Amino acid sequence: MTHGNAPAAVPRSTLVVTAHAGDFVWRAGGAIALAASRGQKVTIACLTFGERGESARAWREGRKLAEIKALRREEAEKAAAALGAEIRFFDAGDYPLTETPELTDRLVEVYRATQPDVVLTHPVEDPYNGDHPAANRMALQARILAQAIGYPGEGEIIGAPPVFYFEPHQPEMSGFRPEVLLDITEVWETKREAMECLAAQQHLWDYYTDLAVRRGVQLKRNAGPNLGLAHRTMAEAYMRPYPQIAKELA
Amino acid sequence: MTHGNAPAAVPRSTLVVTAHAGDFVWRAGGAIALAASRGQKVTIACLTFGERGESARAWREGRKLAEIKALRREEAEKAAAALGAEIRFFDAGDYPLTETPELTDRLVEVYRATQPDVVLTHPVEDPYNGDHPAANRMALQARILAQAIGYPGEGEIIGAPPVFYFEPHQPEMSGFRPEVLLDITEVWETKREAMECLAAQQHLWDYYTDLAVRRGVQLKRNAGPNLGLAHRTMAEAYMRPYPQIAKELA
Amino acid sequence: MTHGNAPAAVPRSTLVVTAHAGDFVWRAGGAIALAASRGQKVTIACLTFGERGESARAWREGRKLAEIKALRREEAEKAAAALGAEIRFFDAGDYPLTETPELTDRLVEVYRATQPDVVLTHPVEDPYNGDHPAANRMALQARILAQAIGYPGEGEIIGAPPVFYFEPHQPEMSGFRPEVLLDITEVWETKREAMECLAAQQHLWDYYTDLAVRRGVQLKRNAGPNLGLAHRTMAEAYMRPYPQIAKELA
Amino acid sequence: MTHGNAPAAVPRSTLVVTAHAGDFVWRAGGAIALAASRGQKVTIACLTFGERGESARAWREGRKLAEIKALRREEAEKAAAALGAEIRFFDAGDYPLTETPELTDRLVEVYRATQPDVVLTHPVEDPYNGDHPAANRMALQARILAQAIGYPGEGEIIGAPPVFYFEPHQPEMSGFRPEVLLDITEVWETKREAMECLAAQQHLWDYYTDLAVRRGVQLKRNAGPNLGLAHRTMAEAYMRPYPQIAKELA
Amino acid sequence: MTHGNAPAAVPRSTLVVTAHAGDFVWRAGGAIALAASRGQKVTIACLTFGERGESARAWREGRKLAEIKALRREEAEKAAAALGAEIRFFDAGDYPLTETPELTDRLVEVYRATQPDVVLTHPVEDPYNGDHPAANRMALQARILAQAIGYPGEGEIIGAPPVFYFEPHQPEMSGFRPEVLLDITEVWETKREAMECLAAQQHLWDYYTDLAVRRGVQLKRNAGPNLGLAHRTMAEAYMRPYPQIAKELA
Amino acid sequence: MTHGNAPAAVPRSTLVVTAHAGDFVWRAGGAIALAASRGQKVTIACLTFGERGESARAWREGRKLAEIKALRREEAEKAAAALGAEIRFFDAGDYPLTETPELTDRLVEVYRATQPDVVLTHPVEDPYNGDHPAANRMALQARILAQAIGYPGEGEIIGAPPVFYFEPHQPEMSGFRPEVLLDITEVWETKREAMECLAAQQHLWDYYTDLAVRRGVQLKRNAGPNLGLAHRTMAEAYMRPYPQIAKELA
Repeated sequence: MTHGNAPAAVPRSTLVVTAHAGDFVWRAGGAIALAASRGQKVTIACLTFGERGESARAWREGRKLAEIKALRREEAEKAAAALGAEIRFFDAGDYPLTETPELTDRLVEVYRATQPDVVLTHPVEDPYNGDHPAANRMALQARILAQAIGYPGEGEIIGAPPVFYFEPHQPEMSGFRPEVLLDITEVWETKREAMECLAAQQHLWDYYTDLAVRRGVQLKRNAGPNLGLAHRTMAEAYMRPYPQIAKELA
Repeated sequence: MTHGNAPAAVPRSTLVVTAHAGDFVWRAGGAIALAASRGQKVTIACLTFGERGESARAWREGRKLAEIKALRREEAEKAAAALGAEIRFFDAGDYPLTETPELTDRLVEVYRATQPDVVLTHPVEDPYNGDHPAANRMALQARILAQAIGYPGEGEIIGAPPVFYFEPHQPEMSGFRPEVLLDITEVWETKREAMECLAAQQHLWDYYTDLAVRRGVQLKRNAGPNLGLAHRTMAEAYMRPYPQIAKELA
Repeated sequence: MTHGNAPAAVPRSTLVVTAHAGDFVWRAGGAIALAASRGQKVTIACLTFGERGESARAWREGRKLAEIKALRREEAEKAAAALGAEIRFFDAGDYPLTETPELTDRLVEVYRATQPDVVLTHPVEDPYNGDHPAANRMALQARILAQAIGYPGEGEIIGAPPVFYFEPHQPEMSGFRPEVLLDITEVWETKREAMECLAAQQHLWDYYTDLAVRRGVQLKRNAGPNLGLAHRTMAEAYMRPYPQIAKELA
Repeated sequence: MTHGNAPAAVPRSTLVVTAHAGDFVWRAGGAIALAASRGQKVTIACLTFGERGESARAWREGRKLAEIKALRREEAEKAAAALGAEIRFFDAGDYPLTETPELTDRLVEVYRATQPDVVLTHPVEDPYNGDHPAANRMALQARILAQAIGYPGEGEIIGAPPVFYFEPHQPEMSGFRPEVLLDITEVWETKREAMECLAAQQHLWDYYTDLAVRRGVQLKRNAGPNLGLAHRTMAEAYMRPYPQIAKELA
Repeated sequence: MTHGNAPAAVPRSTLVVTAHAGDFVWRAGGAIALAASRGQKVTIACLTFGERGESARAWREGRKLAEIKALRREEAEKAAAALGAEIRFFDAGDYPLTETPELTDRLVEVYRATQPDVVLTHPVEDPYNGDHPAANRMALQARILAQAIGYPGEGEIIGAPPVFYFEPHQPEMSGFRPEVLLDITEVWETKREAMECLAAQQHLWDYYTDLAVRRGVQLKRNAGPNLGLAHRTMAEAYMRPYPQIAKELA
Repeated sequence: MTHGNAPAAVPRSTLVVTAHAGDFVWRAGGAIALAASRGQKVTIACLTFGERGESARAWREGRKLAEIKALRREEAEKAAAALGAEIRFFDAGDYPLTETPELTDRLVEVYRATQPDVVLTHPVEDPYNGDHPAANRMALQARILAQAIGYPGEGEIIGAPPVFYFEPHQPEMSGFRPEVLLDITEVWETKREAMECLAAQQHLWDYYTDLAVRRGVQLKRNAGPNLGLAHRTMAEAYMRPYPQIAKELA
């Protein structure tokens, strides 16, 4: 195992760790599309298909577990492709998603294999869904373990990539305070397209379009009138649990 | 009064609002020197000379108020010059620094005159010095008033420049959590030189050198091993009360 | 002065204390309409017209202060009428709204005159607008003073009416966490009509319609599937700084 | 499995999830008696007998584990009967009470079988007793799992019943802030009778009587002088982690 | 003005800054009696008589302002004498107690005259009484000003005496968390005697006796079984906003 | 098993629970040396050698796991001896240190065997190292279990010894606020000597010397000018999660 000093020519790498198959689309689709559109590599580590907790319609239609998992997988693959990202399924079982050393270890492998420059995951709290905090804890734990040369496994150790928490469904109830507002206007159409790959959750398409508009309004209010922003700026909100490293205050 | 749309050729402008004559050196000297070294304009609005609360030695030596103010002014002017910044004295009286509509209004004028792209000031809490929170409140209030076309006065309205809180003397007691770590290695000598202009507080020169080393270690720990940072990175810590506007997550 | 024991036949009374002319519409229009629709009395204490801080368009059109105040007053009167409430203007001057004992005393008078069963006002924090926290502090202070038989003035002392904070424009940045979700579906049309009285802020009509939809979705998620709620439930969110008094847990 | 739409004639159902045999009496006896007195169904899910951590006297008297469990069970059954509730023992072992998927699953069953309209449990923190937070986490987790049609098991899925946290022994040390003050005056004698069923903890009878008086004083202070409350109002305090759904602000 | 280095023979000095005439008895009577019983000097700076906000009964009996102030003054003098403390009245006017530079300056004088080793005052928050936080802010501000050799006035500057916040009437609603539990068993009778000097508030005698019992129970629980404490330990709770200086961890 | 009433002649006992081999030196070396220098007994429960997560240099030099563990053990034994403490190794495996009932049970044994008067451990949060919070949770849990006469095992039950959290590497990022500043000036040389036993981490010797200076400056600032403190006071900072029991406010 050698030190993870990547030569400059390697494209930037983003790792997204999510609990369920749809999460990356609603919460981080803009960030993913933005990175991909700049030639960067984006890998989605999808811990479960959301087969039990987030597929109510399919269960009501009488479908079976295997069928539901296949359905969610297919939708997620389409959405990831639309955004320009690679997706890996862990099939760890949802509702509840249980933290285990084995699952964390598999995440360490992904960290070392992808050498992320940026990590996106769920925030710490979610009083409506315990799988999201579980994914958060494993994503953070694996990131730390992957940094340690003494932790066994394939691949090079990683650096200390910045972490961003994407927005939960009920932000105020989950202690979510926007610390970064990301302008996703230029990839908005791509995000919308990816959302429309999730046919079973059609009621969320407009919901998350409205959210992007609202975060865009907030972005403009915080950016001041000087920035020459689009009339209808679309945005996503993030928290950053670790300090930003800066060469300039801006 | 017209809208504050500055043409691109205007250099970036930084406004620093501080309670006492020495604050800008210890807490934000690196950020100031960095901006100045890049040809940007930095204006320091210095509300008081710290004549009563931060000049214990001079009082013990039996000096008079006017003498002490002149002394602190001279030191602060030298330090500002060393950093490459312009300094304006408000002589509002310290210990206590009292919030008034008039003083806030004078700050609005400075905001509109300098059209800052970035604002630096004290954080919200300081259980050891009530002047610092008072300066914070007036700096924030004036920034909001300066944005309103309906607020009377000379000059153009301003945008919504990001605000950074610099580090107080006892960070953990003041609710200070580093949210931005600014690399000031390249201007470290300049900051040290400015500190040495403050002859009366020689015991703080090494204290704040040590702090810069410690923040530098923290910066490296958060940046990971990949960044090719200097062996001895020097840094300053800041909080940001408003969300960061981003074109990319990094 | 005698004790404020109101006979049962007196209709319930709601007091709304707001900083600017439009606030009561966007933030509490549903609660006001709901109370009024049940024959209750609603009084809006409107501290300023929002003439400086919330009338940017009028200033850009070159209007004068008196004109702007008249305009805002007219709009607010129409909106209040649409909702079924009485509005009282304090004309205390905005941007900044300054806390004074005199203004607080005028609020004490209103409390004693209206004998509110419920009080609505702004929450404690708003990093984008200092007038809102100032209104909050005076509303709370006056409520306490109005309870004291020793505080001089006309009218009977009041009881301890529950207080509700309505939702600020940027809830997550203002420490706002929905503690009460009020179903306003049955008066939604009335709220929309009141919003449309505020001609100068047309861009907010849809913004606050979207917010009501989103709060409605949240209401349904917290109410469970059993309640027989309307397909499109509209809601407003509130915080309650004092404990709820209950005869039953529900 | 079908959707949990209960017809109106079914009496309201309350589910109480507690760590130890005595908890439901001291902390929620009033709420339980109140519900039962109105013909509602109350089910207590009692995870352990408190045989190791809360039976010091019995251990000092030299009793054996089985004996202590039988003793605590008997006392708890009597107290539950006095309050008008049904009690189910899980015998999961205390000190420590360990979170497991199996125990959580048994709770899911109870949720689905009892279809609660209200849930009572311990708050999130207790630095003096780790079993209480463990019970809280399982109670919340099971409530969410029981809502999911995809989570396997007998019975209908449940809605989203409101959750109330009852008061811990050292409220200020456990982050407990009274958010609901429940008037239990009319069932006070019943609560006292239930407390007296817990013979081994006689020193707590007066302690919790005093607490009820103190919460009653607080209730009156927050209710104002207008409510015609009893001279000696008795009360219990609760927190509510999820927003209240309201048809009216009061 | 010279430096405040007190010779060892000077007895320790305690300064208590309170808003209203009764506060020092209910909230800190034990600490005062304890210090006095050890030959220490205790000075109570009583900012108002509580004539408007805390004398409801006298107002209802139709008494006049001057009469009420005289009554409260007499009671407070008796209670202070019972505890063994000196009391100074500022007669600054309550409900509201207004922060002014003049009143703060008078407090600076008291700090310098009494050279306190310990300071007791109200905590930062109290949603039921705005005078308490106002007293807190002035007590803290004056303490800082009194330390500065540059702040004008009679007397020697003071050191940095530790500050303790005493318990408010509704601790959980005021962010009060017991950080110090003071054993007042040996002076309990003295505190009770002082409470009984406050004839107009007889309903509080038992209330604060119960509180002392409860805090005593908490003290014993936190002290462990090893300390040989009295069967009925009485205690008062305090917060400490500044770090404790220790020669040993205990 | 009998009650833990220690006769007065038994020397005071301190228990330190740490995650990795070096932690007790950097973070609590002063407190340990101080206790030992007064003839008290200090026991360090060292859960892991830090073999994977805190031995990067050894791994880079190509050493094997067993070798690294032996190396860290030897260093830690030397450092403990220098401080005058006994050290017990649990060899539980780090990175990650996993919470288990078995490990907690072994800690209960140590609590009962050592009958601590004071407990030192890691604070609750550390976003840079998950082993530290895991050690905290087990140390707190075991302390509670060891108090219960019903919890099985050898030895007498313990009382309720106060707990102190020592300072983490990045205090502001870990919610660490100094609540106790311990003067370690008189044992500073001993702490430095112990630090120098940790040859592999030479870069930290000066880092933690600087920290002790900085905490000493803070101690002096909080102690005021009156205490006759050494010119160069050295200090360590601690938090205390449980209330201090006091016989006097000081």
